Amino acid sequence: MRKVGIVMGSDSDLPVVEKAVATLEQFAVPYEVHVFSAHRTPEAAREFAENAESRGIVVIIAAAGMAAHLAGVVAAHTTLPVIGIPCKSNTLSGVDALLSTVQMPKGIAVATVAINGGVNAALLSIQMLALSDAELAKQLKLYREKIKTEALAKNAAVEAKFLKKGDA
Amino acid sequence: MRKVGIVMGSDSDLPVVEKAVATLEQFAVPYEVHVFSAHRTPEAAREFAENAESRGIVVIIAAAGMAAHLAGVVAAHTTLPVIGIPCKSNTLSGVDALLSTVQMPKGIAVATVAINGGVNAALLSIQMLALSDAELAKQLKLYREKIKTEALAKNAAVEAKFLKKGDA
Amino acid sequence: MRKVGIVMGSDSDLPVVEKAVATLEQFAVPYEVHVFSAHRTPEAAREFAENAESRGIVVIIAAAGMAAHLAGVVAAHTTLPVIGIPCKSNTLSGVDALLSTVQMPKGIAVATVAINGGVNAALLSIQMLALSDAELAKQLKLYREKIKTEALAKNAAVEAKFLKKGDA
Amino acid sequence: MRKVGIVMGSDSDLPVVEKAVATLEQFAVPYEVHVFSAHRTPEAAREFAENAESRGIVVIIAAAGMAAHLAGVVAAHTTLPVIGIPCKSNTLSGVDALLSTVQMPKGIAVATVAINGGVNAALLSIQMLALSDAELAKQLKLYREKIKTEALAKNAAVEAKFLKKGDA
Amino acid sequence: MRKVGIVMGSDSDLPVVEKAVATLEQFAVPYEVHVFSAHRTPEAAREFAENAESRGIVVIIAAAGMAAHLAGVVAAHTTLPVIGIPCKSNTLSGVDALLSTVQMPKGIAVATVAINGGVNAALLSIQMLALSDAELAKQLKLYREKIKTEALAKNAAVEAKFLKKGDA
Amino acid sequence: MRKVGIVMGSDSDLPVVEKAVATLEQFAVPYEVHVFSAHRTPEAAREFAENAESRGIVVIIAAAGMAAHLAGVVAAHTTLPVIGIPCKSNTLSGVDALLSTVQMPKGIAVATVAINGGVNAALLSIQMLALSDAELAKQLKLYREKIKTEALAKNAAVEAKFLKKGDA
Amino acid sequence: MRKVGIVMGSDSDLPVVEKAVATLEQFAVPYEVHVFSAHRTPEAAREFAENAESRGIVVIIAAAGMAAHLAGVVAAHTTLPVIGIPCKSNTLSGVDALLSTVQMPKGIAVATVAINGGVNAALLSIQMLALSDAELAKQLKLYREKIKTEALAKNAAVEAKFLKKGDA
Amino acid sequence: MRKVGIVMGSDSDLPVVEKAVATLEQFAVPYEVHVFSAHRTPEAAREFAENAESRGIVVIIAAAGMAAHLAGVVAAHTTLPVIGIPCKSNTLSGVDALLSTVQMPKGIAVATVAINGGVNAALLSIQMLALSDAELAKQLKLYREKIKTEALAKNAAVEAKFLKKGDA
Repeated sequence: MRKVGIVMGSDSDLPVVEKAVATLEQFAVPYEVHVFSAHRTPEAAREFAENAESRGIVVIIAAAGMAAHLAGVVAAHTTLPVIGIPCKSNTLSGVDALLSTVQMPKGIAVATVAINGGVNAALLSIQMLALSDAELAKQLKLYREKIKTEALAKNAAVEAKFLKKGDA
Repeated sequence: MRKVGIVMGSDSDLPVVEKAVATLEQFAVPYEVHVFSAHRTPEAAREFAENAESRGIVVIIAAAGMAAHLAGVVAAHTTLPVIGIPCKSNTLSGVDALLSTVQMPKGIAVATVAINGGVNAALLSIQMLALSDAELAKQLKLYREKIKTEALAKNAAVEAKFLKKGDA
Repeated sequence: MRKVGIVMGSDSDLPVVEKAVATLEQFAVPYEVHVFSAHRTPEAAREFAENAESRGIVVIIAAAGMAAHLAGVVAAHTTLPVIGIPCKSNTLSGVDALLSTVQMPKGIAVATVAINGGVNAALLSIQMLALSDAELAKQLKLYREKIKTEALAKNAAVEAKFLKKGDA
Repeated sequence: MRKVGIVMGSDSDLPVVEKAVATLEQFAVPYEVHVFSAHRTPEAAREFAENAESRGIVVIIAAAGMAAHLAGVVAAHTTLPVIGIPCKSNTLSGVDALLSTVQMPKGIAVATVAINGGVNAALLSIQMLALSDAELAKQLKLYREKIKTEALAKNAAVEAKFLKKGDA
Repeated sequence: MRKVGIVMGSDSDLPVVEKAVATLEQFAVPYEVHVFSAHRTPEAAREFAENAESRGIVVIIAAAGMAAHLAGVVAAHTTLPVIGIPCKSNTLSGVDALLSTVQMPKGIAVATVAINGGVNAALLSIQMLALSDAELAKQLKLYREKIKTEALAKNAAVEAKFLKKGDA
Repeated sequence: MRKVGIVMGSDSDLPVVEKAVATLEQFAVPYEVHVFSAHRTPEAAREFAENAESRGIVVIIAAAGMAAHLAGVVAAHTTLPVIGIPCKSNTLSGVDALLSTVQMPKGIAVATVAINGGVNAALLSIQMLALSDAELAKQLKLYREKIKTEALAKNAAVEAKFLKKGDA
Repeated sequence: MRKVGIVMGSDSDLPVVEKAVATLEQFAVPYEVHVFSAHRTPEAAREFAENAESRGIVVIIAAAGMAAHLAGVVAAHTTLPVIGIPCKSNTLSGVDALLSTVQMPKGIAVATVAINGGVNAALLSIQMLALSDAELAKQLKLYREKIKTEALAKNAAVEAKFLKKGDA
Repeated sequence: MRKVGIVMGSDSDLPVVEKAVATLEQFAVPYEVHVFSAHRTPEAAREFAENAESRGIVVIIAAAGMAAHLAGVVAAHTTLPVIGIPCKSNTLSGVDALLSTVQMPKGIAVATVAINGGVNAALLSIQMLALSDAELAKQLKLYREKIKTEALAKNAAVEAKFLKKGDA
């Protein structure tokens, strides 16, 4: 069973991770969730990364704030694709985590999504899995249809609201 | 044959793309290279994205500068994973392209790498292909060994240089 | 009947758009309002842009947050002038949307206003319409008088408040 | 004869303005060019703005660097649409001029283009003129075709270069 | 009677200006307060600046937010020293106003204080007046003593609080 | 008795300093706390720095916000190591204090920690003391074990929460 | 004789200071120039500030780069007005020096000019002197006329260059 | 023999490190220099950190650019004090490395110096060593005298240059 391994640097990142989890569940993609810090529990983070492949994990999502080293550290210990979610913290607006996650040097990549971008991190992991899973690829196309339909419904509501008014 | 499709917004992005191409060639991964602009040739960009899957492309790399919309626009027209490379331009230092590429809204993800990160974009695409290609997965592990060996050789040279001097 | 076409990327941009709408109504300028996303409903956004002219729209206002591609994508599919409103989002303070909207590459322009600048986007569209509408041009001059009068009234209130106190 | 009035804050902005001029000439749009500073020659800037309309100017382009007040000051003295070009200076990378130009308060708008965006400022002025000039509207559509053709030619050259190489 | 002339771009800047006013009152320095906008009431702003000297004003304080042109525009119409207070607004954190106020081009200076720095703007104006007012110069020295005394009292309170605890 | 000397620029920095104090108390490291401003009480700040060594202080922690000169000024008057804590203020998000603290010119160093980083400033001072205090060095290792254990407990809680759910 | 006291933090700031000096000489204002560092020679900086008044200095200009504490430190030791020039350094573009200079806390003000703004710092000092020097006040008005005349001459040259071309 | 251990993420950081080395040699402090990457050779970086103490290292200096994780990763594997030098890279101006180095989460500190601050990193390590090395403490005081003398010599040269000229 191919799983997505999710790791966050601190349990304060949980609200962002829960959006990723909810998205994976929508696609019935199995996952694991861990709290491993690149700084407080570096061995656990490393072991997680090194053993991920052997335990059936095929894509890793790493969420962290401030000097967010977690995604880079995990990526250094595995050749599985690693998706980084920069998390907003109390002082700077997430710019520190964004730059710490995305500006990886040549040789070790992190696939970075938007600040607090839990949903998109999950979608990206699913897109990777779907490369060799036709059923998941089909689900992704249905998901796109679904968000399109929802967006068009919102459009219809807004159009209706302004229709009369607009024809001044 | 599974290919990586590379698209850049302007041929001024070529130096960045060539680093991605050189990396793909190191791994003997087939690829295509195109210049499609989200703004000047939006139909071509869209058709490229829509037809990518049927033409054997499994991962897309999109490089663009300034208000870099290309990766996001391509991602909107395919469910294949899209990797975005923000390119540095003449005025701002690439921060405009970084934010335009990475801050995608919920629903459509772009896997963003560092500013001008051509090598890592290619590596990330190879990591995705390797999820269902054991030979490529092996090559990635060898590549890691190789960059480790190169880094250790650099370390050895630097250590030697300073060894005598350091023992003050 | 010449109309202003307003499009927003998400209905969360509605509070900003409503300020534009209120301003257009002050000038009795007809308008349409839509929710089309460059990413979730790109075909609708494109069709809106391509058909705008034939449906009587002469200026387009596009409001979007985060990696705000909407104004650029709309501008790519029409030669009508496109006004972009960068919207503030939860993480960054609108800087991402500002740079994504204003830093358009050579060839396709977006007329960008301030972050959350709904009123000024509407005023700019009216200024464009007024180039061939003497009545509207006159209204704009009256509007300027009005905001001047209001500003001077505020000045009078503040001057009065401090008058006695200032002559220490 | 409807003209575009171009004003720059300092003759050091001339290289940026010349790109605007070249674009207007491509479209055979008449124009004037002036150097008026919001700070060194505020009366001239104001008189230019106040008299622009009566002298046949219908759109104004204002280019300035640093604390770029010119576009805003000009906009305060006319109801014609004013397009602002933030210019890059020696110290900051143009961010000061961008924010000084685009962050206009409610009531007086400036249509801001990218830092050093001379070509797009001109295109935007032409788009405004074209709202009541069918010939110019047609030319704009041809221009779009032209830049599309040029972009596709660049694509063809790049595709050819990489075609053989890509099929690893 | 030599006065300080205070002008703000919008009455939303009043809380910042009130801190300046309170400081001037502490020193019994006469002042005027006005709301003149560089954009909505440019003539009033200009006339204020041009007539300031003849009305007994010797230093001007100008407070404004967003694309804060007010201090620069006032400075362009007087040779009196102009102190600029950049005000924080709803979207950006005052960085736009800071850069718009401080990055003045060669020839016309604005003495810029911290974002929302009403107290310091007043102190700076008093320091200027004190150059030819020995009584005010003396008061400034007393003020320094006063804030020093207050600061030392705070220090004493904090020291007392931690004294016992610190000797672990 | 070797002490840590803590100084803050304003008693509004107390919440940040209290986190440092609590950490020092955990390690039973003696300390002093003062409120000395580089600007309001520069003599006190200087005397504190000059006399620190003779009073048994071996490391100094300086916390300040805005144009945070305190750490640099203290460092200029002692050769003891000085740790700077940039404090977040009301307008900018602490970026002003960070740059004012960390960007020290060649010759006088400040060891800067994260914005509002009271705990880490204390830890850093303890690490310095531990260089010649084997007991403290041992305590630091226990502290690391403790934060590791706490982090692993949080991980266990999160893993348990998601364990069932993940096996979709 | 009333003098302007100029102090810079490092002789690498000399090119910026020389622009200030040249401006003071244009107005025949006496001045002194010193290199005193807030960090390397803090006593000299302090003594300079404390003794400035008694030696005939009435306004101080302080230029410094990086964590530019000089202006603030000087201001803390005098009640004379202090003008700060943030200098651009090799790494950041002067933003560090700008924030370190302008973001002064309540009670001690620094009148900040643009990054590398040597000319304007001098003009500001002259404006302050002119408050009690009618001759200097007259010179300032002539200076304004002169820069206006120069600007208009540049305008005339540019207008002439484009005049024929513009009438397309 | 107590040594300073210097580690850099890439040999491109050597110019910055060489400034640290030269400073350590001025003080005859023994040192080692290594090139270990948090990403390319994470095991070597970790082993270096874990074994540093047993090999006589008492302070570690870590220099890295871009998403500079090295200092944080090293700090996670030792309780010795770790000094981080953020290095400027080709795209951003070192802001990415600064935030990645300084914004460490609670529990693991990095003593961060200025971007490219090699000299100050070495001075800081010497200040730490000097806490238990009276000879080194004495040398530091002499170093301060030396840089003061050098600065005063520069001041004398500049004062002489301007002395005659200033007395206008």
